[in-house]
Amino acid sequence: MDSIISAASVIAAGLAVGLAAIGPGIGQGTASAQAVEGIARQPEAEGKIRGTLLLSLAFMEALTIYGLVVALSLLFANPFINQ
Amino acid sequence: MDSIISAASVIAAGLAVGLAAIGPGIGQGTASAQAVEGIARQPEAEGKIRGTLLLSLAFMEALTIYGLVVALSLLFANPFINQ
Amino acid sequence: MDSIISAASVIAAGLAVGLAAIGPGIGQGTASAQAVEGIARQPEAEGKIRGTLLLSLAFMEALTIYGLVVALSLLFANPFINQ
Amino acid sequence: MDSIISAASVIAAGLAVGLAAIGPGIGQGTASAQAVEGIARQPEAEGKIRGTLLLSLAFMEALTIYGLVVALSLLFANPFINQ
Amino acid sequence: MDSIISAASVIAAGLAVGLAAIGPGIGQGTASAQAVEGIARQPEAEGKIRGTLLLSLAFMEALTIYGLVVALSLLFANPFINQ
Amino acid sequence: MDSIISAASVIAAGLAVGLAAIGPGIGQGTASAQAVEGIARQPEAEGKIRGTLLLSLAFMEALTIYGLVVALSLLFANPFINQ
Amino acid sequence: MDSIISAASVIAAGLAVGLAAIGPGIGQGTASAQAVEGIARQPEAEGKIRGTLLLSLAFMEALTIYGLVVALSLLFANPFINQ
Amino acid sequence: MDSIISAASVIAAGLAVGLAAIGPGIGQGTASAQAVEGIARQPEAEGKIRGTLLLSLAFMEALTIYGLVVALSLLFANPFINQ
Amino acid sequence: MDSIISAASVIAAGLAVGLAAIGPGIGQGTASAQAVEGIARQPEAEGKIRGTLLLSLAFMEALTIYGLVVALSLLFANPFINQ
Amino acid sequence: MDSIISAASVIAAGLAVGLAAIGPGIGQGTASAQAVEGIARQPEAEGKIRGTLLLSLAFMEALTIYGLVVALSLLFANPFINQ
Amino acid sequence: MDSIISAASVIAAGLAVGLAAIGPGIGQGTASAQAVEGIARQPEAEGKIRGTLLLSLAFMEALTIYGLVVALSLLFANPFINQ
Amino acid sequence: MDSIISAASVIAAGLAVGLAAIGPGIGQGTASAQAVEGIARQPEAEGKIRGTLLLSLAFMEALTIYGLVVALSLLFANPFINQ
Amino acid sequence: MDSIISAASVIAAGLAVGLAAIGPGIGQGTASAQAVEGIARQPEAEGKIRGTLLLSLAFMEALTIYGLVVALSLLFANPFINQ
Amino acid sequence: MDSIISAASVIAAGLAVGLAAIGPGIGQGTASAQAVEGIARQPEAEGKIRGTLLLSLAFMEALTIYGLVVALSLLFANPFINQ
Repeated sequence: MDSIISAASVIAAGLAVGLAAIGPGIGQGTASAQAVEGIARQPEAEGKIRGTLLLSLAFMEALTIYGLVVALSLLFANPFINQ
Repeated sequence: MDSIISAASVIAAGLAVGLAAIGPGIGQGTASAQAVEGIARQPEAEGKIRGTLLLSLAFMEALTIYGLVVALSLLFANPFINQ
Repeated sequence: MDSIISAASVIAAGLAVGLAAIGPGIGQGTASAQAVEGIARQPEAEGKIRGTLLLSLAFMEALTIYGLVVALSLLFANPFINQ
Repeated sequence: MDSIISAASVIAAGLAVGLAAIGPGIGQGTASAQAVEGIARQPEAEGKIRGTLLLSLAFMEALTIYGLVVALSLLFANPFINQ
Repeated sequence: MDSIISAASVIAAGLAVGLAAIGPGIGQGTASAQAVEGIARQPEAEGKIRGTLLLSLAFMEALTIYGLVVALSLLFANPFINQ
Repeated sequence: MDSIISAASVIAAGLAVGLAAIGPGIGQGTASAQAVEGIARQPEAEGKIRGTLLLSLAFMEALTIYGLVVALSLLFANPFINQ
Repeated sequence: MDSIISAASVIAAGLAVGLAAIGPGIGQGTASAQAVEGIARQPEAEGKIRGTLLLSLAFMEALTIYGLVVALSLLFANPFINQ
Repeated sequence: MDSIISAASVIAAGLAVGLAAIGPGIGQGTASAQAVEGIARQPEAEGKIRGTLLLSLAFMEALTIYGLVVALSLLFANPFINQ
Repeated sequence: MDSIISAASVIAAGLAVGLAAIGPGIGQGTASAQAVEGIARQPEAEGKIRGTLLLSLAFMEALTIYGLVVALSLLFANPFINQ
Repeated sequence: MDSIISAASVIAAGLAVGLAAIGPGIGQGTASAQAVEGIARQPEAEGKIRGTLLLSLAFMEALTIYGLVVALSLLFANPFINQ
Repeated sequence: MDSIISAASVIAAGLAVGLAAIGPGIGQGTASAQAVEGIARQPEAEGKIRGTLLLSLAFMEALTIYGLVVALSLLFANPFINQ
Repeated sequence: MDSIISAASVIAAGLAVGLAAIGPGIGQGTASAQAVEGIARQPEAEGKIRGTLLLSLAFMEALTIYGLVVALSLLFANPFINQ
Repeated sequence: MDSIISAASVIAAGLAVGLAAIGPGIGQGTASAQAVEGIARQPEAEGKIRGTLLLSLAFMEALTIYGLVVALSLLFANPFINQ
Repeated sequence: MDSIISAASVIAAGLAVGLAAIGPGIGQGTASAQAVEGIARQPEAEGKIRGTLLLSLAFMEALTIYGLVVALSLLFANPFINQ
């Protein structure tokens, strides 16, 4: 009965990518906020601030991409469908 | 029985894009708030601030777009419907 | 059985646009609050502040519009109804 | 069976407009609060502050109106009822 | 079977107006709080502050009224009952 | 079958008035808090502060009254009962 | 079948008065806190502060009383029981 | 069938008194906190502060007592049991 | 059928006392925190502070005791069991 | 049928003691935090601070003990089991 | 039918100890944070601070232990199993 | 029927250890944050601060370990399985 | 009946990676925010700050990776499918 | 019937590791944030700060690892499957 597995897979894909975007979205906003504030206070330190910010944003982006990987695996590489 | 898969897909599409917009929405607001405050304090640093802000907004926008990609995949490229 | 798909579609459309408006609503408020505060502190920087604010509001507006796009697709371009 | 679609439509309409009013409601309050505080601090900048505030309020109002549009579409232009 | 539609309609009406009052209620309080604080600090700016406050309160009141409109439409102009 | 409609109506009435009192309750408290603080700081501005406070409280009271209107309509002017 | 209506009525009565006490409870606390703080700072303004505080508390008390009115109506003047 | 009404009544009684104690509990704490802080700062204003505090506590206590009244009415004066 | 009433009663007793302890618990902590801070700042005002604190704690304790009263009534004086 | 009553009793016991520990846990932490901060600022007032702190902690401890009393009553003095 | 009681018991045990650890965990962190901050500010008051901190931690630890006691009673001294 | 007990046991084990890690996780972070801030301000007080921090972390760790103990008891020493 | 196990596995995989990204996402944002602020204040300490930040981000990244490990184990190394 | 146990086990594994990552994720972020801020303020105290930070991060990491241990036990050492 692949139907119930497929139905559960699409729900799980939606939840995985949806929930995984909440935390990093808030976190990236907090980090960026302090970064632009720091640049406003010390414009000459922009290079160093932007470097550290990009590093941090990439780490946080990765958290959501893990959720996206699981979602896409569930949709296009689902190990339980052609079993 | 494609009906239950289709029904689950539309629910999942709605949840994916809806949940994925909560975090980045709050985060983009926090980042933009500090950016406009920084510009008000240091109008001459507007270029650097706006550059970093745009970079950050794009990162956060990407989080919701991941959710949109999953939602549109579920609607228009659903791998489980014509199986 | 299109009934259950239609019912699920309308629920998903409502949730998508409803949830997707929560985060950007709070975020736009935070950004606008700092913008009007900045204008009150530096009225001569109004042009630059308003420019950056509009840019940010557009980014955040886009998040809810993604949800609206999914909701309208579910209502008026639903790929599962005339299948 | 239009009954279940109609029932789901009215629930979805209520949720869409109800949820979509939470975020902008809080956001408009935050923006207006800073605006009136700014006017109290700089009464001569009232024109500029009110201009930016109105712009922001309109953006946020739009978020709820998206929800209202979906709700009214579900009630008075429901594509699934006379199918 | 109008019964289930009617039952869903009344539930949706209650939810629409109930949820739609949460955000604006908090927001109007935040805006009013800063307005009375501003008047206490700058009593001579009362006219301008009150003008902007009323404008903002009207915007926020509108958000709940959208919910009320949907609720009353569901009760007294329900398009699905005499179908 | 009026029973299920009546049962749903009373639940909806309770939810409408209950939920609609949460936001304004918090908001009126915030506004009143700043008002009494302002009077403590500027006792001579009490008239102006109290005027603006009353105006704001009335706006917020209205939000809950919308919920009460829907609740009482559901109880004593329910359009679906003697249909 | 009055049983299901009665059961729903008592649940709704409990929810109405319970939910309607959350917001005003928090709000009255915030208002009272600033009032006693203001009296501590300006004991000679006690009369004016207490007057405004009482006014505000009455407004907030009203919100819960709306919920109580609906709850008591559901219990002792329920229009759906002897129908 | 009094059983289902009785079961619903006891659940509603528990919810009514439980929910109605959350908000006033937090609010009384906020008010008392500022009162004791005010007394610490201005011990000679203790009488006025305690008077206003008692007044406020009584208002908030009333909110929970409304819930208690509904709960006790449900238990010992339930109008639906001996109907 | 006393079974379902008894089962609902025990659940309601647990919820009543559990929910009713959340708000006062947080509130008593806030009040006590300011009291001990006030004593640290003004050790000579300890008597007055402790008096007001005890008064406030008793008010808040009462809120939970209302829940306890309902819970114990449900367990040991349940009016619906020997009906 | 004692089974369903027993099952409901154990669930209620768990909820009662679990929920009743949330609020006091947070509250005791807030009170203790200010107490140790006060001692650090005024080590010579340690006796008075500790006395008031112990008094407050006992009040808060009592809230959870009420939940524990209900939980233990449900387990070891359940009035509905040997009925 | 001991099965349903056993199943409910293990769920209740998990909930009791899980919920009862949330509040004290947050509270102990708040108390400890101020304690270490106080020691950093007044290293010579370490003994008094640590004494009060330990006292407070023990009180909070007790809250979770109440939950643990109920959980272990449900598992190893369950009064409803060999009934 | 051991199946339902086993299924409930594994769910309860997951909830116990998962919920019990939320509060202490937040609390340990708050405590550690102040500790490292204190060390940065008073590096010479590092020994005393670290000592008190370790003591506090152990208390909080214990809260989660209680949940782990219940979870492991449910899995490997379940008293209801071989009954 | 592998179907129900597979369906539960995909749901669990989605929840595991989705929930496990919420906390670290917020946490990494807080840490990065202070790091970029620190660099803006002390650009010459960038090396040390970035080193400690990377260390912390790796610790937090690990929390989500644990969730990813469980999710991928559920999908591609599920011990219950070919049992 | 091992199916229901297996299905419950995978759900529990996902919840255990997902919930157990929320609190420590937020906590590690708070601790790291203060650590990098402390290093920015006192670069010469980096060794002591990093030492205490690592210690704290390990304690918090342990909380999630407890959840991971339970999750992996449920998957690969489940005591209820080959019973």
